[in-house]
Amino acid sequence: MSPLVTPPNRQRSDRHQDRARMLISCPDRPGIVAAVSQFLAKHGANIVQSDQYTMDPEGGMFFIRIEFDLPQLEVNLEKLKQDFAETTAAEFSMKWRVTQAGRKQSIAVFVSKEDHCLLELLWQWKSGDLYADIAMVVSNHPDMRDTVESFGIPYHHIPVTADTKKEAEAKQLEVTQGVDAIVLARYMQIISPSFIEHYPNRIINIHHSFLPAFVGGKPYAQAYERGVKIIGATAHYVTEELDGGPIIEQDVQRVSHRDNVEALKRIGRHIERIVLARAVSWHVEDRILTHQNKTVVFN
Amino acid sequence: MSPLVTPPNRQRSDRHQDRARMLISCPDRPGIVAAVSQFLAKHGANIVQSDQYTMDPEGGMFFIRIEFDLPQLEVNLEKLKQDFAETTAAEFSMKWRVTQAGRKQSIAVFVSKEDHCLLELLWQWKSGDLYADIAMVVSNHPDMRDTVESFGIPYHHIPVTADTKKEAEAKQLEVTQGVDAIVLARYMQIISPSFIEHYPNRIINIHHSFLPAFVGGKPYAQAYERGVKIIGATAHYVTEELDGGPIIEQDVQRVSHRDNVEALKRIGRHIERIVLARAVSWHVEDRILTHQNKTVVFN
Amino acid sequence: MSPLVTPPNRQRSDRHQDRARMLISCPDRPGIVAAVSQFLAKHGANIVQSDQYTMDPEGGMFFIRIEFDLPQLEVNLEKLKQDFAETTAAEFSMKWRVTQAGRKQSIAVFVSKEDHCLLELLWQWKSGDLYADIAMVVSNHPDMRDTVESFGIPYHHIPVTADTKKEAEAKQLEVTQGVDAIVLARYMQIISPSFIEHYPNRIINIHHSFLPAFVGGKPYAQAYERGVKIIGATAHYVTEELDGGPIIEQDVQRVSHRDNVEALKRIGRHIERIVLARAVSWHVEDRILTHQNKTVVFN
Amino acid sequence: MSPLVTPPNRQRSDRHQDRARMLISCPDRPGIVAAVSQFLAKHGANIVQSDQYTMDPEGGMFFIRIEFDLPQLEVNLEKLKQDFAETTAAEFSMKWRVTQAGRKQSIAVFVSKEDHCLLELLWQWKSGDLYADIAMVVSNHPDMRDTVESFGIPYHHIPVTADTKKEAEAKQLEVTQGVDAIVLARYMQIISPSFIEHYPNRIINIHHSFLPAFVGGKPYAQAYERGVKIIGATAHYVTEELDGGPIIEQDVQRVSHRDNVEALKRIGRHIERIVLARAVSWHVEDRILTHQNKTVVFN
Repeated sequence: MSPLVTPPNRQRSDRHQDRARMLISCPDRPGIVAAVSQFLAKHGANIVQSDQYTMDPEGGMFFIRIEFDLPQLEVNLEKLKQDFAETTAAEFSMKWRVTQAGRKQSIAVFVSKEDHCLLELLWQWKSGDLYADIAMVVSNHPDMRDTVESFGIPYHHIPVTADTKKEAEAKQLEVTQGVDAIVLARYMQIISPSFIEHYPNRIINIHHSFLPAFVGGKPYAQAYERGVKIIGATAHYVTEELDGGPIIEQDVQRVSHRDNVEALKRIGRHIERIVLARAVSWHVEDRILTHQNKTVVFN
Repeated sequence: MSPLVTPPNRQRSDRHQDRARMLISCPDRPGIVAAVSQFLAKHGANIVQSDQYTMDPEGGMFFIRIEFDLPQLEVNLEKLKQDFAETTAAEFSMKWRVTQAGRKQSIAVFVSKEDHCLLELLWQWKSGDLYADIAMVVSNHPDMRDTVESFGIPYHHIPVTADTKKEAEAKQLEVTQGVDAIVLARYMQIISPSFIEHYPNRIINIHHSFLPAFVGGKPYAQAYERGVKIIGATAHYVTEELDGGPIIEQDVQRVSHRDNVEALKRIGRHIERIVLARAVSWHVEDRILTHQNKTVVFN
Repeated sequence: MSPLVTPPNRQRSDRHQDRARMLISCPDRPGIVAAVSQFLAKHGANIVQSDQYTMDPEGGMFFIRIEFDLPQLEVNLEKLKQDFAETTAAEFSMKWRVTQAGRKQSIAVFVSKEDHCLLELLWQWKSGDLYADIAMVVSNHPDMRDTVESFGIPYHHIPVTADTKKEAEAKQLEVTQGVDAIVLARYMQIISPSFIEHYPNRIINIHHSFLPAFVGGKPYAQAYERGVKIIGATAHYVTEELDGGPIIEQDVQRVSHRDNVEALKRIGRHIERIVLARAVSWHVEDRILTHQNKTVVFN
Repeated sequence: MSPLVTPPNRQRSDRHQDRARMLISCPDRPGIVAAVSQFLAKHGANIVQSDQYTMDPEGGMFFIRIEFDLPQLEVNLEKLKQDFAETTAAEFSMKWRVTQAGRKQSIAVFVSKEDHCLLELLWQWKSGDLYADIAMVVSNHPDMRDTVESFGIPYHHIPVTADTKKEAEAKQLEVTQGVDAIVLARYMQIISPSFIEHYPNRIINIHHSFLPAFVGGKPYAQAYERGVKIIGATAHYVTEELDGGPIIEQDVQRVSHRDNVEALKRIGRHIERIVLARAVSWHVEDRILTHQNKTVVFN
C-alpha cells in the first residue's frame, strides 16, 4: 500500500540551512554572555535570537539558548564547534551543544493500545508542525500497524511480558539505534533503568494527570474519586523514579461534577495529546535544558 | 473613625424580595422533578431557574437547585416549607433547604497575617459582588484591626497558642454564634474536629496549592522543588482530614523556570483570592450541595 | 481498499436506547416546568437531567433541555410526541423537539484545502467522541479524497467557480439530502442565502478569529497587524450575514510578539479544530437552542 | 488622618541597588549582542538576564532587554551611559535607555467613578507587588478622595466639562509634572492629542473589551448583544486613535448565555483589574518596548 500522505516540506524561516542553535549551561560568573557573543561574532555568526536565564544570581547556574546564522554553516560548523570546545567552553566549564536548525531530529514513538497521542504526533508531523522525522513506531501490540504504515512509517511489534521484558528491551534498543529521542505516547510499560541510561533526558513520557497529583495507575479514576474541578496532563523526561522525572510541560482543563470517569478520560485525551505534542516539539527544536530534576524551557 | 465605605445596596434582579432558592438531594427515582414542580406550581410559585443532576442514573443520587418567585414570599414561605416537609420531602426522603435570595447570609472571616484573601473579600463585599454580611473578622494576630475596622466591621483578636487552643476555640465559637458560615482566608491554624462539627460543610478554607498535590505546609516551596509548570489554589470545605475536604473550586496559572518561590507566592496570591472569593459567593448563593466527599456546584 | 478503521460502537450510559431529549423554547409564564414534568411523569418517563434558563424573568423567554428515560422508547415515543403537541406544547405556544439520544445524527462535512478541522472530526468520530454519522465529505477540491475514503466515508468533489456556483450548490443540495447538519470545516466558499434556508441553524462554520474581531478574510494577518496578545476561533451557525450568525463556541490562546503570521496560523489551527469539534458535538447532542441571533448552550 | 497602611519595603533580589536594566531597539545587523555584551563586560557589569528578539531577521528590527549588575551602580552608572551613547549606541543607531532596577518609578493614576482598577493598583502597591510610587490620584469626580487619602496618597479633584477641558488638562499637566507614567484606571474622558504628546508611550489605558472587538462605548452591552462566549479586557498605550494604541496585555474569561450585561460587567471588572495591574507592572519594570503600533513585552 502506498503511503496515505507524503511527508511535508514546508519552508520555515527559522529552519533555513545556515541557522544553528547553541545551548549552554554552566556555573554563573561575570562575562559569560560577552565571551560567547564575542566568540560567535569573531566566527562571523549573527545572533538572531537569544534567551538566557540565571538561576539564583549569587553562586547559581547560567543557562542560554542562542539561535545564530553562520554563512555556509554546513562547511563551517565543525570548525566553530572545535574552537568553542577548546576556548570558551573550557574556560567556563560549560555543558553545551550546537545543532543545525535545518536538520530534522529522528524520533521513535512507543505506543500500546490508546492511539490519540500517536495520531496527534502523526498529524503534526504530516502537517509540518512537528519538525522531526518519525523514524518508527514501536508497540507491544499489533493493533496500530495499518494506521502507522499508511503514513509510510515502519512499525515494530515487540511484545512485552513479565518473562520477556529483558529480551524485548534489547530488541527495542536494537531497532531504535540512532534515533535522537524516544516518545512514550501512552506506552503502558515501565521502562527499566538500564534502558533509560541509553537515552538520558531523551525519553519523553506523557502522564495522564497533573503531576505530582495522581502518580501511578488510573489517574482519571483517582481524580474522579477526589472530586477535583480541573484535570491535567504532564509531559516529562523519564528517569528511574516513576512519574518523577523533570517536568517539561503541563496543561489542564476545567471539569465539573457532571463528568464521570469516562468523561474525564475523553476530556483528558485532548489535554494529553496537546501537552505531549508541545513537549516533543520543544525537544526537537532544542528548547529544553535540564538541571537536576527540573527543566529550563526557552519557548 | 467612621467607616471608610458604606455597605452597598445594589439592585440585582435575582435577589429581589420574592425570590427563593430550593436545594434538594435524595435517592433518585422516577417522578421527583414532576413532584417538586407540581408542588411549587400548586403554591403559586414560578420556577425561574433550575439546575438538576443525577449521579449514576441507575440507583444513584438526585440533586436539584431551583430558583422560584413566590408572591409575598415573606408571608407565604413558612407555610410552603411546612407543607413541603410534610408531603414531597417526606415522600422522597429528601435532604433539602429553602432560603430567601434577598436575605444576605452572614459570614465570619478568619485570618492570620497574610491579608490578600481578606482584602479581596472586603472589596467584593464593598462593591456588592459578594452578596453577604461580613459579620466579623477573627484573627490570632492583631495586625489587621485598623484595616478591618475602617470597613466598619468588628475585629476579634483571639490569640492561639498550643496551650490555649481549647479556650481560643471556645471563644471563637462564642463570637461567631449565629453566623451562617466561616471563611478561613489564609488562617494558619488547624481547626479541631470539635469546632468543625459546629459548622458542618460551612467552613470554607483556601489551600494554596492545586490539591491533592502539595498537601500540608509550604506548598509553593514544594511546587518550586518539583518544577511544575502550572500552580494553583483550592477552596474546600473543612473536614477532619487536613486539606482533604470536598473541593469547591480550583484555578491555576502558568509559571516557568524563571519563577522562584517568591514569584510563585506572588502569582499564587492572585489565584488564592479569586478562587476563595468564587467559593464564598457560590456558598452564600446556595449553589453548592455536598455528597460524600464531593461537591455539586450549580454555577 | 477496505476502510482503515471501523466505526466505533462504544457504550455510553447517556445514549442508551430508552433515553430521549426534549428541547423547548417559549414565552415565559408561571407553571411551565410543572406542566412539562407532570406531562412526562404521566407518560411514565423519568427525568434524568434538566437544564433550564429564563431570559429576563419578567416577560422573557423560557428555555429548557430535558433528558428522560422512557421504557420501550422506540414503541412509545411517537404517542408521547403527539400527546405533547396537542396538550402542553399548544397550551404554552412552545417551539420544541424531542429526539432519541441513541440515534446518531448524520452530518456532511464541507472542506476546501486545509485539512486540520476535517481530520479532527474524523478522528473524534473514529474514537467515538463525536457521536454522529459522518455521512459524506463534500469538497470543491479533489485533494482529500484518499484520506476521507480511507475512513470508509464517501467523498463528493464538487468544483465551485464564480460561473458555476448555482449549479454547484444545486448538486450539493442533492447529495446532502437527508443529512441532519452541515459542517463547514474551513470551507472557503460563501454559502448563498438560498442554500442556507434549506438548513436553518443547521450549518456550522468555524471562523478563524475571535469574532466579532477580524471578520472576513485573512484574520491571522489582521491579528498580527493589530498586535493582539490572544488569538481565537469561533464556531457559529451560518446566516446571511457573513460571520454574523449565532455564536456557538469560542476559545483562545495566548500569543506574543514572537509569533509571526505563520506561527499564528499554526497556533490557530489547534484552536479551530477544538472549537469546531466542540460545537459539532453539542449540536448533535441537542444541546443548543437559538433565539434571535444568540445561542443557549446547555453543556 | 494618618495613613491606613505604610508603604512596603520588601526585599526583592532583582531590585537590589546594583541592578540596572538596559533596553535597546535598533535596525538589525550582525554583531549587536556581541558589541553590547562586550561593552558591559569591559565596564565590569555582569549580565544576569537577557531577552532578545529580532523581528524579521533579514532587514528587520532588533530588540533586547538586559538586566545587569554593576558594582557601585550609583557611582558608576552615569559614566557607563555616557560611554555607551558615544560608542555602541552611536555605532548601531540605537534607541536605548538604562534604568536602575532599585529606583521606583512614579505614576499618577487617573480615575472617574469606577473604583475596582484603582483599588487593585493601591493594593498591589501596598503589598509590594507593584514596585512603583503612586505619586497621586487624579479624578474628575470627588468620590474617591477618602479612600485614596487613607493610603496616604494625594488626591487631585480636577472636574472636566466640555467647556473646561482645556483648562482641566492644563491643570492635570501641572500636577503630574515629573511622574514617569500615567495610568488611566477606568478614566472616562478622552485624552487630547496635545496632552498625549507629553507622555508618549507613557499613558496606559484599560479598555473593557477584547480589542479590536467592541471599540468605543458600552463594550459589555455590545458583547451581550453579539452573544460572545468569552469576554476580555485590553491594556494599551494611549495614542490619538481611540482604543487603537499598541496593545500591552489582554486577558479573557468564559461567559455563557446566563450572563446578562450586569453579570458581564461584574466578571469583566476582575479581568480589567488583573490586566491593567500586569501592564503597569511590566511598564515600571521596563519590560516593554514599542515599535510602530505594537509592543515587544519581555516578561
